Amino acid sequence: MSKKNVQDKLLIFALGGIGEIGKNMYVIQYDNDIVIVDAGLKFPEEDMLGIDIVIPDISYLKENREKVRGIVITHGHEDHIGGLSYMLRSLNVPVYATKLTLGLIEGKLKEAGLLGETKRILINADSEIELGSINVSFFKTNHSIPDSVGVCLETPEGIVVHTGDFKFDHTPVNEQYADIKRMAEIGQKGVLALLSDSTNAERPGYTPSEKNVGEELKDIFRKSPQRVVVATFASNVHRIQQVINAAIATDRYIAVVGRSMVNVVGIAGDLGYLNIPDGMIVEPEAVNKLAADRVVILCTGSQGEPMSALTRMARSTHRKVDILPGDTVIIAATPIPGNERYVGRTVDELFRLGANVIYGPGSVSGVHVSGHGSQEELKLMLNLIKPKYFIPIHGEYRMLRQHALLAEAVGIEKSNIFVMENGDTVEVQGGKARRGSKVPAGNVLIDGLGVGDVGNIVLRDRKLLSQDGILVVVVTLRKQEGTIVSGPDIISRGFVYVRESEGLLDEANKIVSATLLKLMNDKVNEWASLKTNVKDALGRFLYEKTRRRPMILPIIMEV
Amino acid sequence: MSKKNVQDKLLIFALGGIGEIGKNMYVIQYDNDIVIVDAGLKFPEEDMLGIDIVIPDISYLKENREKVRGIVITHGHEDHIGGLSYMLRSLNVPVYATKLTLGLIEGKLKEAGLLGETKRILINADSEIELGSINVSFFKTNHSIPDSVGVCLETPEGIVVHTGDFKFDHTPVNEQYADIKRMAEIGQKGVLALLSDSTNAERPGYTPSEKNVGEELKDIFRKSPQRVVVATFASNVHRIQQVINAAIATDRYIAVVGRSMVNVVGIAGDLGYLNIPDGMIVEPEAVNKLAADRVVILCTGSQGEPMSALTRMARSTHRKVDILPGDTVIIAATPIPGNERYVGRTVDELFRLGANVIYGPGSVSGVHVSGHGSQEELKLMLNLIKPKYFIPIHGEYRMLRQHALLAEAVGIEKSNIFVMENGDTVEVQGGKARRGSKVPAGNVLIDGLGVGDVGNIVLRDRKLLSQDGILVVVVTLRKQEGTIVSGPDIISRGFVYVRESEGLLDEANKIVSATLLKLMNDKVNEWASLKTNVKDALGRFLYEKTRRRPMILPIIMEV
Repeated sequence: MSKKNVQDKLLIFALGGIGEIGKNMYVIQYDNDIVIVDAGLKFPEEDMLGIDIVIPDISYLKENREKVRGIVITHGHEDHIGGLSYMLRSLNVPVYATKLTLGLIEGKLKEAGLLGETKRILINADSEIELGSINVSFFKTNHSIPDSVGVCLETPEGIVVHTGDFKFDHTPVNEQYADIKRMAEIGQKGVLALLSDSTNAERPGYTPSEKNVGEELKDIFRKSPQRVVVATFASNVHRIQQVINAAIATDRYIAVVGRSMVNVVGIAGDLGYLNIPDGMIVEPEAVNKLAADRVVILCTGSQGEPMSALTRMARSTHRKVDILPGDTVIIAATPIPGNERYVGRTVDELFRLGANVIYGPGSVSGVHVSGHGSQEELKLMLNLIKPKYFIPIHGEYRMLRQHALLAEAVGIEKSNIFVMENGDTVEVQGGKARRGSKVPAGNVLIDGLGVGDVGNIVLRDRKLLSQDGILVVVVTLRKQEGTIVSGPDIISRGFVYVRESEGLLDEANKIVSATLLKLMNDKVNEWASLKTNVKDALGRFLYEKTRRRPMILPIIMEV
Repeated sequence: MSKKNVQDKLLIFALGGIGEIGKNMYVIQYDNDIVIVDAGLKFPEEDMLGIDIVIPDISYLKENREKVRGIVITHGHEDHIGGLSYMLRSLNVPVYATKLTLGLIEGKLKEAGLLGETKRILINADSEIELGSINVSFFKTNHSIPDSVGVCLETPEGIVVHTGDFKFDHTPVNEQYADIKRMAEIGQKGVLALLSDSTNAERPGYTPSEKNVGEELKDIFRKSPQRVVVATFASNVHRIQQVINAAIATDRYIAVVGRSMVNVVGIAGDLGYLNIPDGMIVEPEAVNKLAADRVVILCTGSQGEPMSALTRMARSTHRKVDILPGDTVIIAATPIPGNERYVGRTVDELFRLGANVIYGPGSVSGVHVSGHGSQEELKLMLNLIKPKYFIPIHGEYRMLRQHALLAEAVGIEKSNIFVMENGDTVEVQGGKARRGSKVPAGNVLIDGLGVGDVGNIVLRDRKLLSQDGILVVVVTLRKQEGTIVSGPDIISRGFVYVRESEGLLDEANKIVSATLLKLMNDKVNEWASLKTNVKDALGRFLYEKTRRRPMILPIIMEV
């Protein structure tokens, strides 16, 4: 996209977060001014073998680096801040965030060695900042982490509102009310475009209040004759506060277990987002010395993640905490799609250890509510902001479509709703919006220390290797004489039990020999032909015998 | 287990189906008489890389082959009949099943070339058969496939009842009422032990009637201006009948698409389980010639399976059927845990093609109900059969536990409830039951043509390969001289893009050379030492540089 194309136009697009849950990154550009909203990560999909995390492709931003005025962060969840350190490595721009969000970000920047060189600006819901020609202000929202905000971006073409993640909780924990009044005022001014959270657009009705969970927790704590173990999302500071409140009400101590839980409780406590009585927190090692009915263990692992605290406890491999028969374990979270089996297995193991487990969808267990608004709340947001144009964000395609239907239902014109993909742009000029040309967008895969060095070919190979393994065939030839000097030796991994398949591999050996001898006899001596023929002959033979297609790697040498 | 131990005792155990959903196989043994109930398969779990299906380990049955009197099949679902041909290959025993079940089994036996040599006995709900000292009778149940039965096994130690899969549907399709009267009569006689389906033991209340789905389908068909595509389980013959009924009511033709759907519609139609008006079924190729509002496409793919008909249509890669904008697609099934993402992706693609998609949990979409009874129905079964001992079956551990709680709630003594694992036995002697010694039980993995030739080592290798790929290091030495004649050559697959990582691989090369030269210089010449040292040095280097641990395969040769 040349400079000319964007002059005097407003551009709105996503580099991540549309058509997916994760790696949120939205871009608002007016003329030569770019403001970024959020920089998240995504956890790999099941076909991204060996990948640790996924971040957005930011080549558009790098190409336009001199225009980027800043990045505004809506809240401190990984899918909104987890990509920040990767981005900042190649694009050093000022970061604007509220107190808790900034606290969590600073922890990450420290780990990445980027704290010193990053300009960090603390904002609150009343802040107003000028980022070039774009005036940015904020409004409070309810979400499953404190200090979440929506963003109001006033551009010369009009106001763009980005909701961040939100629900409407009329009885919030920690007094963090959504600022409905300010939302209505923004709507009153006239809004050009709304970008709104679609996570729960498929869900009818209202999302229940976080307070409901608190009551249920107290009730369970009270009835539990022994220790209570609560697993929840580390970032859900409201939930953690309610666990603390329930522990106070039932005269229990709390041990905090699991790296990210310890981290968040530390940061949120230091910044004043948690109200913890002195002496209430004890070391995990200390719980065995306390009476069982005086103990709460607050831990990670609500998604059944293999290395998490609760999973280790369930497998009796945790260094410090054992689950004892009669303990009550509360899984205060709903499995994220894809994690159902992991959570199920953890629950099974806990039951096997004799624990009483409270789990399942929040509507049944009562110990979880979503942080995202359901259909009626999404309509309320649409009616408060009253935008001319609507862009559903933060959701898989079907959720965006359902959100679009809700927008139609409240009266937004169908032609003014843009259901997009990452990289699709909306261009606004003279108050009229239309689809613009695409900008580059995609997944950057992170595997260990490698950023982007694993792509489709590597993933395809991993997939092949994972299905039927590999056979390495080593053979040394004397091509001139047309003889085999040593080998063929066949080494297999992930294919079959070698001991049980000796006969098969002996036959395979003979086929390789015969193939090579015939080729040399026919004066076919090019390495490429020899290799291809060995691969083909051996592949055919193995498929016929086993119906498997292992990767075959012929290593043919000459003396 | 020696012959002596089992004399005059009743043994009850599962070789599959307890602690899992899948590969159901239950064994009732009295003295020298063994009756098997069901022989199912299970689909592989996500850590069983490259595995096609999983069947029970039947070594106990093979060791006691002369005692096996027959196998009784409760209904025609894969998790109850899918392991049968594998079992029959090593254990030729008579198979007893009702008409539709036997029809489906015969299709499988034909494919496996076992039809001729297998004794098949058609039964109905009124049959009584003598299998040695065990008298076997049946009772009708409601389930998501016609002709399902529960089994009543009268042994000299008392009556054992196996429910099969069931719900209580008071308005069933095809008039297949559950025979509540007979269940009550069996209960009246006095039942020693009940084995009952735990699939929905976590779900409160009642499972709705299949008839509800029919009404909803008619309604959707009526409102759809264009073609209607319905994806559901091929085996759900009741559901298929309701699709046919809705098509009749709205004057539409039906095209059947997808191998297993064509297969089941064929068998069920031939055996009289489907009522299809003449001329209603058209070839898939014909639908393009019909008016869009006269067409229904009935297909497989309700689980988002990658190769299924609906998935291909959603990706526009189906040979015969395209989804057109404005078509209505009904996914009349709930995703099985683990399939949520696949189904989600299919729905996304269908929306992208402009279809109107009706999907989601049955309670929201109205187009699916479960085939398994919920908590109130499980209690009803317990109260009808009134067993002395209770063994929850057919479910993961947590479901068995919930079912046990329900049994306690209706008054079964806690000490009379056996929550077991596959291979655990219950021994009954003189009317008293207790846990007996274990019998061998486990997973037999099927990969292509291989039955059981892939085990833990192969799976572990596949897992390793899938995460970080493999490096093959080839080097030829002249050990006596302590020199490297050729190489090291490093070939990698699934590790990194070679082009972007030349520097890394060059360095790796040098490390291998240095390691080998030093070892030879120190007169360390054993192959094992050379290989181990190369692996360790290279592994350390690569982990430090990339934080990855590829499999390393050193191939060191001598001239």
